[in-house]
Amino acid sequence: MPEKISALCSPKRFLMGAGPSMVDPRVYEGMAQPIVSHLDPFLFQVTEDIRKHLAVAFGTKNEFTLAISGTGTAGMETSITNFVSPGDKFLVFANGYFCDRICEIGRRQGANVVRFDKPWGEVASDEEARSAILRERPRVVAYVQAETSTGVFQEGKALCDAAHEVEALVISDVVTSLGCMPVEIDKTGIDIGFSCVQKGLACPPGLSPITLSPRALEILRARENDIRTFYFDLKLLDEYYKGGHRYHHTAPITMFYALREGLAVIAEEGIENRWERHRLGHRALVAGLEAMGLEMHVSDPAIRLPMLNTVRVPDGIDGTAVRARLRDEFSIEISGGFGDLASKIFRIGIMGVPAQRENILRLLEGLEVSLRAEGYATHASGTEAAEKVYASA
Amino acid sequence: MPEKISALCSPKRFLMGAGPSMVDPRVYEGMAQPIVSHLDPFLFQVTEDIRKHLAVAFGTKNEFTLAISGTGTAGMETSITNFVSPGDKFLVFANGYFCDRICEIGRRQGANVVRFDKPWGEVASDEEARSAILRERPRVVAYVQAETSTGVFQEGKALCDAAHEVEALVISDVVTSLGCMPVEIDKTGIDIGFSCVQKGLACPPGLSPITLSPRALEILRARENDIRTFYFDLKLLDEYYKGGHRYHHTAPITMFYALREGLAVIAEEGIENRWERHRLGHRALVAGLEAMGLEMHVSDPAIRLPMLNTVRVPDGIDGTAVRARLRDEFSIEISGGFGDLASKIFRIGIMGVPAQRENILRLLEGLEVSLRAEGYATHASGTEAAEKVYASA
Repeated sequence: MPEKISALCSPKRFLMGAGPSMVDPRVYEGMAQPIVSHLDPFLFQVTEDIRKHLAVAFGTKNEFTLAISGTGTAGMETSITNFVSPGDKFLVFANGYFCDRICEIGRRQGANVVRFDKPWGEVASDEEARSAILRERPRVVAYVQAETSTGVFQEGKALCDAAHEVEALVISDVVTSLGCMPVEIDKTGIDIGFSCVQKGLACPPGLSPITLSPRALEILRARENDIRTFYFDLKLLDEYYKGGHRYHHTAPITMFYALREGLAVIAEEGIENRWERHRLGHRALVAGLEAMGLEMHVSDPAIRLPMLNTVRVPDGIDGTAVRARLRDEFSIEISGGFGDLASKIFRIGIMGVPAQRENILRLLEGLEVSLRAEGYATHASGTEAAEKVYASA
Repeated sequence: MPEKISALCSPKRFLMGAGPSMVDPRVYEGMAQPIVSHLDPFLFQVTEDIRKHLAVAFGTKNEFTLAISGTGTAGMETSITNFVSPGDKFLVFANGYFCDRICEIGRRQGANVVRFDKPWGEVASDEEARSAILRERPRVVAYVQAETSTGVFQEGKALCDAAHEVEALVISDVVTSLGCMPVEIDKTGIDIGFSCVQKGLACPPGLSPITLSPRALEILRARENDIRTFYFDLKLLDEYYKGGHRYHHTAPITMFYALREGLAVIAEEGIENRWERHRLGHRALVAGLEAMGLEMHVSDPAIRLPMLNTVRVPDGIDGTAVRARLRDEFSIEISGGFGDLASKIFRIGIMGVPAQRENILRLLEGLEVSLRAEGYATHASGTEAAEKVYASA
């Protein structure tokens, strides 16, 4: 029998964890626009807008820049299945959860996966990366530019140079960096970069931006064998989004509207202003956390991600209880740690929307109250220290 | 330099083609609700609502009923890659474009694909299906319940019975039927059914509902080897959506909100009322088309899909010009044919929202004017014939 079902009403959470992050109001407005069909010329105007603006965020002149119809892990799988063939030697610089995931997808693909491991919170030095690559002479190399599980940044220029010396392609996970800090696909020498839309681009999850260097594109277009996946076959997606618009799948139109609007917001702000907003927010946040007596998990400030801050849970304090209190009393969500770092760190994201003075102060205040309630005596006021950073900026 | 970018403003099209179809206003409202994270208990309340209501539309008691984070083709690839192993004999009943796609994905998967072909617009008879299955003794059988390229319905009960006699699993593409007509997963004996959300469920594209029979689920859970795909691995998705909610990917939250609302609209209407609305709309539409002197492509009325109507383009008439006129002068979009049927048929969808008297009359009026402008003399009034059907209903 017909029934009355109350309208969806989601709880209002202020998302300052490892992602998804807050969605920009303009993005919600864009999603209310009526859909067109997946072969409508209007959709391809939208994807062209997206191509143009993604290029700025990626730091690339690559012709091939589009978004996969799946979330970030779909972009990861697409990058690997299109460029790593069964039996290929695939060298992965592993220092966190998402590096492990790259290894896992490579293994399922039948690649000969070789890991170069570093502890979670560190990165391979330029010399280590270079010597591993020259020794292994892999077909494809992968690394994570912004490790969401640890808060570590890996620049990758020396790694890419060495890879190109042995004619390897480089895949880089830029899921957490895009829209928050310079990604520099071209300057770094990344051949295949993939990302997501629910962090620095301030959209709901659902698409995975991807960009291919001219060399990767040439290899793709010259490929004669079909790869195993049809849905993620970049050759078919290239034919769908470019020129003839040959039908491949029914693109998630509304998600493309969202991404177009998320990128429009970034263009209006100016990408460099946006990066600076994150840098400043990071400085203020770290000053606040350290004033409270907390310790950053990534000891070297030079490799700390500005938008994803990992901080150690103080000894004897129940981190899960702190996060629950922060959520229940302040409606702010932050993340805990993964794997080896479970219960040892908090992960505080300021990706996109949250990287603003009032949000950072609110988070510091809520964290202070929640830590105290769980028995931690903060040393000094976190908000005061953060305000000083903003005042002197 | 920062620039001002005008807000997205999409053209208003009334979508009566092969999909996507019109989105229900309540779905747009649902998508404006703030997102939560992919591990938030609220998301799993939403996915539980979805599971419950999808079961009604699918006609199943299956425990495993969820939505894949990709569009319909992602559901097709998921079904095949999880249940067809390299080397398996995979029998496909082929009578249209999407059957060909199933074969293509099976081929890429390394299966031994065996086709049983019928002309586009016909289906294998029960006897043909049965004898092909008993002869070939495949590991997995696939057929398309509702072929979007031809407008043909294939019920599949005898096919499923024969498949189970030889212990084969049956995959069925129910992309176009779900939400528009009885799908009857359980009564028919379908082991793996996959669909989309942008047709009968009145959502924007972006998810692919999928359901597994107890036997398919048992095989899935007993599987010891990892399959090649990580993103589409149903075993991992089962762990994410059920019980422990083990992180797998960042689910497209807003699309899940959309689907929850699309299904709520169906529950409020009542699924049987909805089916009846499509049946009646189909009868009215066909009466109108035939009154105008047009011929249905599927000659046997018993296997015509109610929601996806294929009608022949009259001899000497430029179908593309007719569709363009309908779009430009009436803002109504219908589809042309695919492959062998390109330029030979119109495909008129009344999936979900459009299956209502006023829309069908508007379509018939627009089509009549457009056909006349392109030189076709309609025999009698299409709208009058359609109104009679509604009046006598």
